[in-house]
Amino acid sequence: MVSVLDRLPTIAGSGSGRPIADISPTTLRNAYRNGDLLPSDVIAHVLSRLKDVDQAGVWISTIGPGRAMSAARTLDTKISEIDMLPLYGVIFSVKDCIDVAGVPTTAACPEFAYTPHDSSPVVKRALAAGALFVGKTNLDQFCTGLVGVRSPYGVPRNPHNPDYITGGSSSGAAVSVATGTSSFALGTDTGGSGRVPASYCGITGLKPAPGALSRRGMIYACRSFDTISVYARAPEDAFHVLEELAAFDPEDGLSDPNYAIDRIAPSAASAYHCRLAVPQPSDLRFFGNKEVEDLFHKVLGSVRTRFHHVDEVDFSAFTAINDLMFFGPFLAERDASVGSFLTQHPDAGLPLIRRMILDSRRFSAADAYRAQYLVADTKARLRPFWARYDALFLPTVGTVLTLKQVADDPLTPNFNNGYYTNFANPLGLAAVSVPSAVTVAGVPHGVTFVAPAGGERLLTSLAAAFLARSDLK
Amino acid sequence: MVSVLDRLPTIAGSGSGRPIADISPTTLRNAYRNGDLLPSDVIAHVLSRLKDVDQAGVWISTIGPGRAMSAARTLDTKISEIDMLPLYGVIFSVKDCIDVAGVPTTAACPEFAYTPHDSSPVVKRALAAGALFVGKTNLDQFCTGLVGVRSPYGVPRNPHNPDYITGGSSSGAAVSVATGTSSFALGTDTGGSGRVPASYCGITGLKPAPGALSRRGMIYACRSFDTISVYARAPEDAFHVLEELAAFDPEDGLSDPNYAIDRIAPSAASAYHCRLAVPQPSDLRFFGNKEVEDLFHKVLGSVRTRFHHVDEVDFSAFTAINDLMFFGPFLAERDASVGSFLTQHPDAGLPLIRRMILDSRRFSAADAYRAQYLVADTKARLRPFWARYDALFLPTVGTVLTLKQVADDPLTPNFNNGYYTNFANPLGLAAVSVPSAVTVAGVPHGVTFVAPAGGERLLTSLAAAFLARSDLK
Repeated sequence: MVSVLDRLPTIAGSGSGRPIADISPTTLRNAYRNGDLLPSDVIAHVLSRLKDVDQAGVWISTIGPGRAMSAARTLDTKISEIDMLPLYGVIFSVKDCIDVAGVPTTAACPEFAYTPHDSSPVVKRALAAGALFVGKTNLDQFCTGLVGVRSPYGVPRNPHNPDYITGGSSSGAAVSVATGTSSFALGTDTGGSGRVPASYCGITGLKPAPGALSRRGMIYACRSFDTISVYARAPEDAFHVLEELAAFDPEDGLSDPNYAIDRIAPSAASAYHCRLAVPQPSDLRFFGNKEVEDLFHKVLGSVRTRFHHVDEVDFSAFTAINDLMFFGPFLAERDASVGSFLTQHPDAGLPLIRRMILDSRRFSAADAYRAQYLVADTKARLRPFWARYDALFLPTVGTVLTLKQVADDPLTPNFNNGYYTNFANPLGLAAVSVPSAVTVAGVPHGVTFVAPAGGERLLTSLAAAFLARSDLK
Repeated sequence: MVSVLDRLPTIAGSGSGRPIADISPTTLRNAYRNGDLLPSDVIAHVLSRLKDVDQAGVWISTIGPGRAMSAARTLDTKISEIDMLPLYGVIFSVKDCIDVAGVPTTAACPEFAYTPHDSSPVVKRALAAGALFVGKTNLDQFCTGLVGVRSPYGVPRNPHNPDYITGGSSSGAAVSVATGTSSFALGTDTGGSGRVPASYCGITGLKPAPGALSRRGMIYACRSFDTISVYARAPEDAFHVLEELAAFDPEDGLSDPNYAIDRIAPSAASAYHCRLAVPQPSDLRFFGNKEVEDLFHKVLGSVRTRFHHVDEVDFSAFTAINDLMFFGPFLAERDASVGSFLTQHPDAGLPLIRRMILDSRRFSAADAYRAQYLVADTKARLRPFWARYDALFLPTVGTVLTLKQVADDPLTPNFNNGYYTNFANPLGLAAVSVPSAVTVAGVPHGVTFVAPAGGERLLTSLAAAFLARSDLK
């Protein structure tokens, strides 16, 4: 076996205490094409990493070494087919609310676990494209949280500073990419779960609009607007993966047959001519974190000089949707998903999450319809906005939270983490979060570009243009 | 003033006890073009009819003669502009849950009445196209019923046999067309309100899929899938009106910017080659009415000989949606619409309707979401069906009900009236009901063609082809 560390670039500062191999899809593909490595070399390396300290709390289950090596060696023999296998030898993890055949799905609730016979269509597409599955990652139980601490399977460590949270709910997924044990990770995003951990872990979180990816074979948070999301280090890699996974699923009632990822994407240069909107100062929230506020304003200043059209806008139509997520009838979609399990198993589930989900029964059907009308009316009201702007530019989160802050108050900081993210899926929007700054404590902070459904390619160009001249790159 | 009866064809048997003038849009247009009549002649005739016995219970309010004649005389002077005014001099009534500026909207509940400053965008389009508004028509209160007897403003008479109901909820609208006091009528359709009365009154009821017509300026039954509907004698006239009224409304959150009435429509001859589906015999319901059952089977036999592709199909995916309408969480949309009025006015509203709407509070938000998932999954499940068939062919109602039957049991016969209609709007389908037979008691019975959204032109062709060689024509 070759040492992948000799053959791949390394990345410092992941919290593992030593340099880690960069197993990004593009890096691996080049290494495979050049004959420097085989998929079995890479999976062996990843397997050797799974007990490292930076992996604590990341994995709910991992594929056995026998099965992993066997799959990799089969792929080794197919190197001549690499052009037909767009994700050849790329390693991926799967958030443990998404089914992988033969591996338990827990949704971070051991009593809930079941072993599916079939994989999610999205997982199937990844495997069919040549990707290698490594394991199921930890999450805020039932995807209910934006913090990453709400799991009986432990708390994944923030790779950059263990005093800080990783964000949630797709916590393990983000850490698996940040620490180099996954080339990409499948997360999910309902209220921000595919973006908030990207910000805290210093990676890319790409979340298509609901309907781009099949939603069969997963545990729903809010089935109406959940989506699987993709984590990778670079936005281009995340988009490449997304393109391979996106497909209309006729058996998924909410899959959109007309969903098309916009083919019109600006070049990196012309991305600077896109029209960006940023919330007016009075609509920005940093929850008392002056450092993050200053970092964001510095980033925004740089964006203003590099991008040609940046307007301050009224952000209230977006945030008006936020309260429906964790204080309103949207919560009842979680009841529709797992409520009957919780009532049948009075000892299962974290008390906070049980209460949150079951308390949603106070909302009437009329409340749900009123929420639906508000969403429809807001979408309509925003049509002129989306005619005027290509994307919304936002902080991904308004502050960076420590484990202690979240332990002291498990509710408010969690909700604050969703201020810039909650509205996107109900409004049918796509978003990408990329790193923009690092705090003195070493914790990354991300920014997000948001665009209407189908704009994932545009968002990727914007994110790449943003990073191209960023100090972080 | 000329007597329109001398200048227009007449129609017998409307229950007025005398022949009535045929004021269909096409007939009027020809008469205006030929110089036989002016709009003021026709409106004067209609005004003279409004106290006739066949109009009892039809009108909740009518335009004053002064205002009516003034509008008509203005139009008289514009005869040279008839080519720019597609509904020039056509008389129309408006169901009293749709706003007409300056005229009270009651929704058949006097305590609920308010006088809007603005007309529904659909009414505005009718007026802008040269149509003349005559009055607001009676309905089952808050559009909650398929019978036409649930109104404090009286019960419209079935024009063909006063022992029978007119069907509802757009009862007065259908009678106004059947008795020749409107060229076309605006009704609404949620669970069948724009089709059931067409069947009972022997006219055409054309109901586009939700999203084709603006839904602002109306009292909602189920805002998610209500639609304004059009009554006329002939399907071609109903379609002509629909085309003039259909327009994307950016201010209506549920208006569909991509809604397009299908431009591919078969000629009358090729309509016979369309692929029709009819419920398999075990899925047909006639609720013990052997006469209607025999009439429908006779019609179906004739359809089988004239149309080239008629398959018997499993109808259960459609009817599985029905129970959500009057027994499930869809009822809560009515609560979202008028529930707060009803709780604030404990003496307002018919007891049956109050109870039905307010009892919907037993449904939770999770119930509403589950209903939504069922609808989405059913739509997806029906995609192959709609790839295989151009239209579904159905009885509009399974029986014809007498006033006594409905008085004896106000609930079950009402629900039965919706067996072939309830599912269409939730599933996003368009439908047209046309007359197909007459019972021994003289009561018409209709059949319905159903197609996916945008298929209104196709449905019109099918209905016209059906009528072309029908004995009823």
